[in-house]
Amino acid sequence: MIIVRSLQKMQALAIKWQKQGRSIGFVPTMGSLHQGHVSLIKKARRDNSVLAASLFVNPSQFGPKEDLAQYPRPFFRDKRICRENGVDVLFCPREQEMYPKGFNTWISVDDLSKPLCGAFRPKHFRGVATVVAKLFQLVLPTRAYFGQKDFQQLRVIERMVQDLHLPVKIVGCPIVREQSGLALSSRNSYLTRAQRLAAVNIYSALRAAEEVIKSKSYVSEREVRRAAEVVLRKARGLRIQYLSVVEPSTLKPLTRVTGNALVAAAVFAGKTRLIDNVLIRKS
Amino acid sequence: MIIVRSLQKMQALAIKWQKQGRSIGFVPTMGSLHQGHVSLIKKARRDNSVLAASLFVNPSQFGPKEDLAQYPRPFFRDKRICRENGVDVLFCPREQEMYPKGFNTWISVDDLSKPLCGAFRPKHFRGVATVVAKLFQLVLPTRAYFGQKDFQQLRVIERMVQDLHLPVKIVGCPIVREQSGLALSSRNSYLTRAQRLAAVNIYSALRAAEEVIKSKSYVSEREVRRAAEVVLRKARGLRIQYLSVVEPSTLKPLTRVTGNALVAAAVFAGKTRLIDNVLIRKS
Repeated sequence: MIIVRSLQKMQALAIKWQKQGRSIGFVPTMGSLHQGHVSLIKKARRDNSVLAASLFVNPSQFGPKEDLAQYPRPFFRDKRICRENGVDVLFCPREQEMYPKGFNTWISVDDLSKPLCGAFRPKHFRGVATVVAKLFQLVLPTRAYFGQKDFQQLRVIERMVQDLHLPVKIVGCPIVREQSGLALSSRNSYLTRAQRLAAVNIYSALRAAEEVIKSKSYVSEREVRRAAEVVLRKARGLRIQYLSVVEPSTLKPLTRVTGNALVAAAVFAGKTRLIDNVLIRKS
Repeated sequence: MIIVRSLQKMQALAIKWQKQGRSIGFVPTMGSLHQGHVSLIKKARRDNSVLAASLFVNPSQFGPKEDLAQYPRPFFRDKRICRENGVDVLFCPREQEMYPKGFNTWISVDDLSKPLCGAFRPKHFRGVATVVAKLFQLVLPTRAYFGQKDFQQLRVIERMVQDLHLPVKIVGCPIVREQSGLALSSRNSYLTRAQRLAAVNIYSALRAAEEVIKSKSYVSEREVRRAAEVVLRKARGLRIQYLSVVEPSTLKPLTRVTGNALVAAAVFAGKTRLIDNVLIRKS
């Protein structure tokens, strides 16, 4: 595995691969890798001739009061995980090269960025779309892999790729959970032992919502939400930021669930914001 | 010369060229071609192994009260001009494929889009940047050619290419003028004979501004502007929308001119809006 920091070197390498007709797998990450990332890397390794992963804590997707400074950056551990799972090139761009003085270009996927997390993190998805588009131009992937835990992010990226005709296939991969049900996240490292126990209820709540939806052919959004809220309210020390039932493709709110639905939540455990979702397919 | 309408076919063709290691020249246009476009096509023909041009009147760069509907579309003439000047592929995408239902992604180059034309056409450069990025992904050019008459557009595109690391070289080409000095524009076809005569004064005014700048090592923006305005005011039937003296790279207003400067104007002749500029290099 080689480590590349220079943007120009990364792009030159990608162009070389492209000319050789090799398929390029790409797993963009913010580092602090867990088994969720490992599942993406393993899948990408199986599907492609060369495999690039990136580590870049992207400042433009953090709000001014968010955890950019304290976001974990265990570089040596991340490097080892990538090497052990077959990454060929680990791309670690420098912030000052990604966002030099005078940087001025932003990509927005308007409607899909407004609901759910977007309502509380107004410039988050603009930062995500922009950095992902930049990384795609530097790595020129054939296929790029994203976890479904960040479901809204996945939809924003899929829409951007479609609208801008980026020649890359986006592969969404299932959420990886602890045995307890807690979705893996780099931010789980912020949790105290008590918060971790409480946080388990996020997935239980989503499962309760899922059960209500699956038990009936017609169910109101309120009924679904109430089923989940009951579970969350019983858990100590959790604060719901949002709990929404939306159409999975447009992310528009549903008032009644008859077909596919996404139940998504953002919940604070102390100061740590956790997100999770379940995708329910009925049609 | 072949004509391609399908986005997928265009991209497949471009990928094929790319794999063959051919350099791809690209001249994106809104059609209604004149000698300005021809100069871009000729230069692109000399520089590259294959040459694509596009005809697409991009709706997203027109304001609600602008001339989208009446914009000239002389398809057979444009086709002939392209064929005669060595275009290999004429790409004519359909509006419903470029902007399908649910289209949701926009690229903005914030600061560079605000002054000059941007102050009067608020979403214009967002539309330009977005469509150019889309066309670049479909045609995958090695080099793309733009006229300096749309100087702000050129700067917006250069900045976007730099910020998003698009692997294309942007080539800016000199303004082509009638013998009278009038800059060639598809919109000149809207002008009456009298308006055409008046419009000649736009370039005279810019030349007057240039003379003032070149005559002194230090000159105030007001003095430059006044020299141009005197000429424009003497011409009948012209209305100045803006006349600005800016730093050519950032497009920020200059209060005094000591180094390079761009003097740019938008002027109405009747209902027809014309733009022109002179780039003055002192350093």
